[in-house]
Amino acid sequence: MSIAAFAALGPKQALTPFTCEPQALQPHEVEIEISHCGICHSDLHLIDNDWASSTYPLVPGHEIVGVVREAGPLSGFRPGQRVGVGWQRSACHECEQCCAGDENLCPRQTATAIGQHGGFAARVRADGRFAFPIPEALDSAVAAPLLCAGATVFAPLRRWKLRAGAAVGVIGIGGLGHLAVRFLRALGCTTTVFTSSPDKLREALALGATDAFSSTDARQIRAQASRFDFLLCTAPARLDWITFMTTLKPNGVLCLVGAPPGLIQIPAGQLLSAQRVICGSDIASPAVIREMLTFAAEHGIAAQIETAPMAQVNEAIQRVRSNQVRYRMVLTN
Amino acid sequence: MSIAAFAALGPKQALTPFTCEPQALQPHEVEIEISHCGICHSDLHLIDNDWASSTYPLVPGHEIVGVVREAGPLSGFRPGQRVGVGWQRSACHECEQCCAGDENLCPRQTATAIGQHGGFAARVRADGRFAFPIPEALDSAVAAPLLCAGATVFAPLRRWKLRAGAAVGVIGIGGLGHLAVRFLRALGCTTTVFTSSPDKLREALALGATDAFSSTDARQIRAQASRFDFLLCTAPARLDWITFMTTLKPNGVLCLVGAPPGLIQIPAGQLLSAQRVICGSDIASPAVIREMLTFAAEHGIAAQIETAPMAQVNEAIQRVRSNQVRYRMVLTN
Repeated sequence: MSIAAFAALGPKQALTPFTCEPQALQPHEVEIEISHCGICHSDLHLIDNDWASSTYPLVPGHEIVGVVREAGPLSGFRPGQRVGVGWQRSACHECEQCCAGDENLCPRQTATAIGQHGGFAARVRADGRFAFPIPEALDSAVAAPLLCAGATVFAPLRRWKLRAGAAVGVIGIGGLGHLAVRFLRALGCTTTVFTSSPDKLREALALGATDAFSSTDARQIRAQASRFDFLLCTAPARLDWITFMTTLKPNGVLCLVGAPPGLIQIPAGQLLSAQRVICGSDIASPAVIREMLTFAAEHGIAAQIETAPMAQVNEAIQRVRSNQVRYRMVLTN
Repeated sequence: MSIAAFAALGPKQALTPFTCEPQALQPHEVEIEISHCGICHSDLHLIDNDWASSTYPLVPGHEIVGVVREAGPLSGFRPGQRVGVGWQRSACHECEQCCAGDENLCPRQTATAIGQHGGFAARVRADGRFAFPIPEALDSAVAAPLLCAGATVFAPLRRWKLRAGAAVGVIGIGGLGHLAVRFLRALGCTTTVFTSSPDKLREALALGATDAFSSTDARQIRAQASRFDFLLCTAPARLDWITFMTTLKPNGVLCLVGAPPGLIQIPAGQLLSAQRVICGSDIASPAVIREMLTFAAEHGIAAQIETAPMAQVNEAIQRVRSNQVRYRMVLTN
């Protein structure tokens, strides 16, 4: 049965109504009737073909929540279950990474909205291994952004074993950063926000941060010398890395989840003298996504969102592009 | 009682005989009659004042093995014990790092041969907390280089939990690198060497490496794509970091123990897409030095050395400077 969707027909184009004709449902797949889909900056990169990986017509959307309408016999689901789908659509389930439970690092993985239509649609097909039951305590609208933004910031907090009492800096307060602050608060960490938006300095405190500073004022950054166990950079911006590195304690970790342009440049001495670490984190494995959803439900963590009807997708995208949304736009069917 | 030593009287000068007049022995100190002292590249940097931290007259030497002649009542040692001393001379024992057992990261630490005379001497004073019993199975001459070179390469293998079966690359085969290959072999890892010296390509296999490639030929490096769990860089050289990063598996770690000049420059995408890590490692804590010595004794790990009498220190230094030593020069009294 054909699926109503919104598609970009070429790079940087506005989305237009588009009808998808899916193949027969595979045994391990579910078909989900979408109720909500977040708009992630990655969707804009896909529309614009910034990563040279897009195929058109392109139906974006990978922060999906909905209800299973049809379930393949090997999908592990049954009709009526509420589920979410994030960035990843498949993995090989055979490589070293998959066998270690790091399916998000599988070299043969595919993405929800690349080579198949995504969540800016009435329905979507998903591999049951990459669909996740939504805990009852979570409202669908505020749960949708957890599937990508939430998972992306939660995974490194787990990988690097952030514990109560840790001092953490979060650079950038958008869809990812605001959820990081909420997760960190629930973990018992003290959180310092760095943002380039003067408005967000105050908003950060309301989100649960202890304090907030400009991410572009070297003096304010330098004043936090040797303060942080962990620095999570959600801003896809060129930053003063050398100065930010000085804010890390010995053994401190700078973790990137946004992709800044250009090269990261630092003197080796900054890594050697205090055993500092620079790393990246790439979405989350299915196991970590399930853990994140459970954690969010237990701690009442929800995205702060604006909503718009799916039919107003182009206006909604425009608000995201102009950086007006606090902090995630969610489309509703 | 005055101590005969060899000192540089100013930056880049040859060493000359010099007499030290030590203070009274402190309760937590030992006085060690030195039998052996390795020559580390850091000694050359100290002589040359490359780090702007040297004080003259400067008696280098921080890979010391000898016998306790006098032991303060709080030193934890008794006369006659064979001990070793490495780079670090003291820590505050109060800060967060010291309390966590990471005394090597103490911001107030001091070095054996800075502000006090080091091991190119007949005797040396050491804080008992930074003197280490040498296991009986280890010969003094080949144990001396373990105190700095050995500890420096062993510590990151422990910190990053290298286990049997891990695929490891070692860049640079000198005092540090050749010991890294031996430790890795004992840990059951497979080791690939990268070296800029054609002679060492073959020597690396004799040391226990599985294979060896040029560290300056991008094609040879690129051919090892996604191969390593861990890449230990012991070469204080400007390298093709971007190409070396491609040799790391997902979650792979590039760890620097030598300080290359200039900036490390890499695109953020190399960190993000496979969750790669770049870090540094700085000597080793006392607990890790003790563990390393025990491990070396159990596995018969010794440095491959040349020896020279202490009186020929300048000729010995010249061989180190001209990169002729295989793989560590040790001065003997």
